[in-house]
Order: sequence, then structure tokens, then C-alpha cells
Amino acid sequence: MAGQKQQKDIGLKILTLNCWGVPVPVVCKHRNERMPAIGDAVANSDLDVAVFQEIWHKGDFDILKQRISKTLPYSHYFYSGSIGSGLCVFSKWPIGQTLYHRFDPNGYAHKVQHGDWFGGKGVGLAVITVGGVTLNVYITHIHAEYNRENDEYLAHRIAQAFSLSQFVKLTSLGADLSLVCGDLNLEPVDLGYRLILTNAGLGDCWLDKMTSDTSDKAGLTCDCPGNSYCPSKSAGKRIDYILYKAGNGVEATVSKCDVTMGRVPGKAFSYSDHEGVQAEITVKNSQNSIVPTPDPKTEVTPLLEESLGLLDEGLTVTRSGTRFFTIFAVLCLLLAYIITVVHIPYPLDFFVGVFRVALILATGYGVVQTLVMIRSEVHGLEAAREDVKNLLQHLKS
Amino acid sequence: MAGQKQQKDIGLKILTLNCWGVPVPVVCKHRNERMPAIGDAVANSDLDVAVFQEIWHKGDFDILKQRISKTLPYSHYFYSGSIGSGLCVFSKWPIGQTLYHRFDPNGYAHKVQHGDWFGGKGVGLAVITVGGVTLNVYITHIHAEYNRENDEYLAHRIAQAFSLSQFVKLTSLGADLSLVCGDLNLEPVDLGYRLILTNAGLGDCWLDKMTSDTSDKAGLTCDCPGNSYCPSKSAGKRIDYILYKAGNGVEATVSKCDVTMGRVPGKAFSYSDHEGVQAEITVKNSQNSIVPTPDPKTEVTPLLEESLGLLDEGLTVTRSGTRFFTIFAVLCLLLAYIITVVHIPYPLDFFVGVFRVALILATGYGVVQTLVMIRSEVHGLEAAREDVKNLLQHLKS
Repeated sequence: MAGQKQQKDIGLKILTLNCWGVPVPVVCKHRNERMPAIGDAVANSDLDVAVFQEIWHKGDFDILKQRISKTLPYSHYFYSGSIGSGLCVFSKWPIGQTLYHRFDPNGYAHKVQHGDWFGGKGVGLAVITVGGVTLNVYITHIHAEYNRENDEYLAHRIAQAFSLSQFVKLTSLGADLSLVCGDLNLEPVDLGYRLILTNAGLGDCWLDKMTSDTSDKAGLTCDCPGNSYCPSKSAGKRIDYILYKAGNGVEATVSKCDVTMGRVPGKAFSYSDHEGVQAEITVKNSQNSIVPTPDPKTEVTPLLEESLGLLDEGLTVTRSGTRFFTIFAVLCLLLAYIITVVHIPYPLDFFVGVFRVALILATGYGVVQTLVMIRSEVHGLEAAREDVKNLLQHLKS
Repeated sequence: MAGQKQQKDIGLKILTLNCWGVPVPVVCKHRNERMPAIGDAVANSDLDVAVFQEIWHKGDFDILKQRISKTLPYSHYFYSGSIGSGLCVFSKWPIGQTLYHRFDPNGYAHKVQHGDWFGGKGVGLAVITVGGVTLNVYITHIHAEYNRENDEYLAHRIAQAFSLSQFVKLTSLGADLSLVCGDLNLEPVDLGYRLILTNAGLGDCWLDKMTSDTSDKAGLTCDCPGNSYCPSKSAGKRIDYILYKAGNGVEATVSKCDVTMGRVPGKAFSYSDHEGVQAEITVKNSQNSIVPTPDPKTEVTPLLEESLGLLDEGLTVTRSGTRFFTIFAVLCLLLAYIITVVHIPYPLDFFVGVFRVALILATGYGVVQTLVMIRSEVHGLEAAREDVKNLLQHLKS
């Protein structure tokens, strides 16, 4: 544990990659070739820990496990939601403890094309102990943005970013090194990114690195022009991260950080539609037993205040959905009734019959939305708002 | 923080009560009289912290807040699910940080009469700092048992108990005193209770108390013969608890623990259908800087192995539900089709029409169960199983 006199001196290499493992053949290209290639790349590396996102299909995890297990024999998949969290971790050292913390709210069930709701998104924690060093590896994948100009999920994503930061802050007190890895779906200028770093007291490996082989100095990881699955003229963005924090009595140095896992050797395509991020971090004892934390007045407080405003806006929009879905359900039921009592001649009656079935199902959906889903979303946002308020009050006192 | 030389010396009184706040008039008796009475009892007490379960109605929380706020000015309600977690906390001291960890799985949506699913059950954490002492107050309400002889929720409840123990263990490292309070819906002989205590390293205030005014030496809190809402011949059980753990460098003593909040003075009814539990705990610095933890080989390991067996049984039952609901959906659709093509004479056609609507909705429900709900339940149980396996492996190594 941190703060004891035991010698702590390790160096570790860690990789994070959003693998684009959507199990829909036409939409998600070369999945059957990319997954073994990712596995082989990790198996032939000198990595100590590798974490992945978007491993939605259990078969893909098995492929990775089969290829990687000789190099990184310990692994864990974080099951969640109806299609899985997509998150997993491979480690050279035994994974002692695991815990999955699910985010709430997490998008909408009716946005099937987005699908985040079905993944039961959250943050997975794997506690690894090696050479007297307790390593907390957090893997996460925050709800996607989809539309940067008009982000209908903004309040959800702020709630998730805050929940992640609180979870990391409150579970990392016993760790010598905490690493928060994954696709945050947040750019460095975004409120959510700044909230995670300042509230959880994390550094960004890419920013704090001593050296790097990466030619792209912006460290872009998504929508990169060099990626085979992205338009060559896309601007690119940095949304995949390895964030880190040293425990008390410990000093962590990011000796190297690279954007990696670009094109598959000998193939015309990339490993994924994201690039990976790899970092080398050394951990050793330090006389500075207290880890510096951000100054609440100047750093955390304004971010919490900004978050509060966005959560309140999100709540207003969400609550207005109750009236919409109530009217929707009533109209569907009314229309179903009208096409039942009005005589429809053959052969039209068959199609009208199918339409009636759809209307009845839509009515049921509207009722479930009103009575269950929207209420649940409101509670998720209210929970985030109250948590933010408590922390704000605490920091101001 | 624990382990520092700062003087830590406080005594605190804490109460937990399941308030039976089901907002259904006929089912839940005297709610409008009991809630203000509970508020007044706490307001006129010398309590430092009070936590409640089954405050499902926001109006009830407001009543409690209004009555209690002069004595315990700080409060927090843990919003969750579509009807709320029912969990809240009142404190004499400011609540600095809060975090809600939702359990998964958590019963079934179609068991509307049980309703646990709609509450989004979990554990709420409130971090309170007073006089240099960091106090972690956890409030929880595990899924109910309903049928002790044939507990269809057993795997869910084991998963929740384990998740609670992991969450407490991993978030309590910075606390000088951790208190896990609430209705565990587990008796002291139950696996879940033993799992929580041993895995999280908690003591039970009722067992460790130095003194008590309670006449019932079994400390029963539910189905008590003296409770106005329980049959006079019921055996009673102990399922409401205040569990505790001291941090490093700190010693905690349970000077007193009582079963309390029985009959409302001057009324013919009790405060709730549960009794409350109240404890007085003193915290002071200690030379024993390392808190004793249960021996993994003899205490935690066998409980984890037993849990694993029950989770596997639960998974088998859950998976078999996929076939059941698929057949259910097909039969409902088939029947809806048959009663559509067969001529039904007036006035029977109206009732058959209503029945057809019900069949179509049932078909939709069967599809959602198969594609979403059961898959989600399987993932929740698999997550618990993998977490248990990791810990088991870790303890055996």
C-alpha cells in the first residue's frame, strides 16, 4: 500500500485501443481480419498491460485472449448491459480484484442506431499488484458525441464524466499508480475532459511525456486522415487517452507516449477506425508523500458550476419528453382504434392490420417511455446534479 | 486521512430505519402520519446521522427534511431507477462527496408486484468530514427475498451482496470510519451477510456492542411480533444493520447499539413495518495502525466458492428464460393472428379486440425480454461471477 517503506520501483508499458468491434458485417469492415491482427500485434510486443474498447462480441474477446495469452496471460472482460460494455483488459500480472461501475444515465434505448444504451456503459476497475506496487487500471468508454454542433447527449456525457471522476477519486486512495484508459469521446478542450482530470487529480500521459516517436504532434486518435477507415481530408481529434495518477509516497514519470496501432503490416487497412495510445511509465518511491491535488477554488469549482448548468438544461429537455411521449401514445392508440372500426376492403386490410400491430406496439412503447425510461433518465441526471452540488458546496466551505 | 498524526476523537450516534414509504394508500398504511412522526422523532433526538430506506416518494423526503433540518441540517437523496432508490441520509455535519453505485442485476421488470427493478437498487456513499475524521456512510437496500424456501432472486441477491462488499472495500481506504447501514434483506446466517462482513472487513454493531437497552436480545428488526403492522405470532428476523470498520491508525468502539423506533407515542401504530437500529460509536487514534482483515483462506475463500455455485445456478435458470420468452412471443403473435382472421360476432368482437391488443403487447414484451432484458441479466450475473473468480484466484495465489 502507498505510504509504506516498501521499495517500489517498476516500469510498465500500457496500450489502449478502441478496436471497432461492432458485430455488423457491412457496417464494420474487416473485423474478422483485424481482431487476430490486433491480438498478434499485442502478443509480439513488450507491453505489460493492454486495454480495449468496443469488443462487443464475446468471440472477438476469445480471439484476442487466444493470441495474447502467452504474452499477457491474465485477462478480464467487463460484462454489462444487453450487448456487453465492450471493455476488457489483458495483463502480464495477475488481476486481483475487479469492479464495474455502470454510468446512469446512458443514452436512449430508442436510438437503436447509436446503441450506447444497450452496452450499459461505465468504468471497469482492475486492481493489479506487482512488486509491492498496487496498480489500479480503469477502462472506460463514455457515451459517443455523434453531433458536435448539437449534442443531444451532452448532459448524459457530463454526468458520465463526473461519475467517472468521482469513482476514480474515491477508489484510487489505496493505489500507488492509477491509470484511466480508454475512449472518452471527449476532446481536450471539452468540459468533460477537464472535469475528469481536475476532479480525479489525473495527468494526461500524452501531455506529460518526456519523449515520443509519434510524428503527429497533436496526438490525434480518431477520424485521422491516415486511417484507412477515415476520409483523407478529416481533421482528426484526440479522444483516446491514458491518464495517470501517483499515490502517496510514490512518483510516476511518463518516459514515453505514442500514438500507435495504425496500419496492419502487409494490409491495406488499419487495425481499427481509432489509433491506439501507448505509454511507458516508471514508478518509484518519493520523499514527497502527499500528491499535489488541483486547487479547488481555481480549477474544480468553475467546472462544476458549468456542469451544473448543463445538467439543469438536460433535465428541462428530458422532462419535456414526458408530455411528448404521452401524446404520442394517445395518438397511436387513437389511430389504431380508428383503423379498426373503419371498414378496410381486401387486399388493403392485410397492410392496415400490420400497421395496427405497429401502432399498438408504439402505444406500449410510449407508455413505457413515459412511466419508466424518462423517469429513470431524470433520476440519473438528478443524481449527477446533486452529487455535483454536494462537491461544490464542500469545495466552497 | 487515516494514518496521519492528527488527533481523531469523536463519538457519534447513528440511526437506520426502513421507513416503509410505499406510495400506495391501501397497501401502505398511515404513511401520511408516520412520515412526520419519523421526522419529529429524529428532530427531537441527539442523533448525528440518520439514514433511511424506502423513501420512494419525493414528498416524503421533503417532509423528513422539513422536520429534521434544524437538528440535522445536511441531507442527500440518492436518485436512481424510475421510482428512486428510496435511500437518503441526514447529517449534523456537511456531506462533502456523494456517489451512487447501482447494482446489476436487480430483479425483473415484469415482477411489478415486487417492484425492486424499478428502484434501481444499489449503495449510496456519503463522505462526511468532521473534526479531522473522514466518515464514509454507505446506505443500501438489497433486493428483497419474498420467498425464503424458494428464493428466485438468490443469485441476484448474492451478486448484490458481493458488489456491495467490493464497493465498500475499494472506496473505504481513505476513511477513518466506514458505516454500512440499511436493510440488507439478509439474516445473519445467510451467505450474503457473511460475504459482506468478511470481504469488506466489517463488524456488526449489534454483535460488537458493549451495552444495549433493547429487551429483545436477538435484535430483531422485521416481522417483529410487537410491530403494529406484523402478525403477533410472527417469528421476526434481523435484517437491518449498522456495520462498521475503522481505518488505519484508528480504533472504533461500539459503546451502545439498540433496536429502536418502535411504536409512535400516543398512537396505535408503529413508525414503520421495520424497527430501526441505532448505534453509538467512538473513534480515536490507536497505535494499531493496521486494521485486522479476515484471513482469506479460512474466511473469505469458502464464501466465494459457495457464491460461485449459486451464481452459476442462477445463470442456468436465467439462460433458460430465453427459450421460454421466445415461445411465449411466438404463441402470443399466433393467437393474435388467429383471432384476427376468424370471424367474431357482435358484441363479442369488442372483447376479442381488447384481447388482441393485449396479445400484441405481450408479443412485444416477449421480444424485449429475449433480446434485451435476459441478455442484460445474464451479463450482470456473469460480471459478478468473473469478479468473484478473480478475487478467489487472488486469494488462493
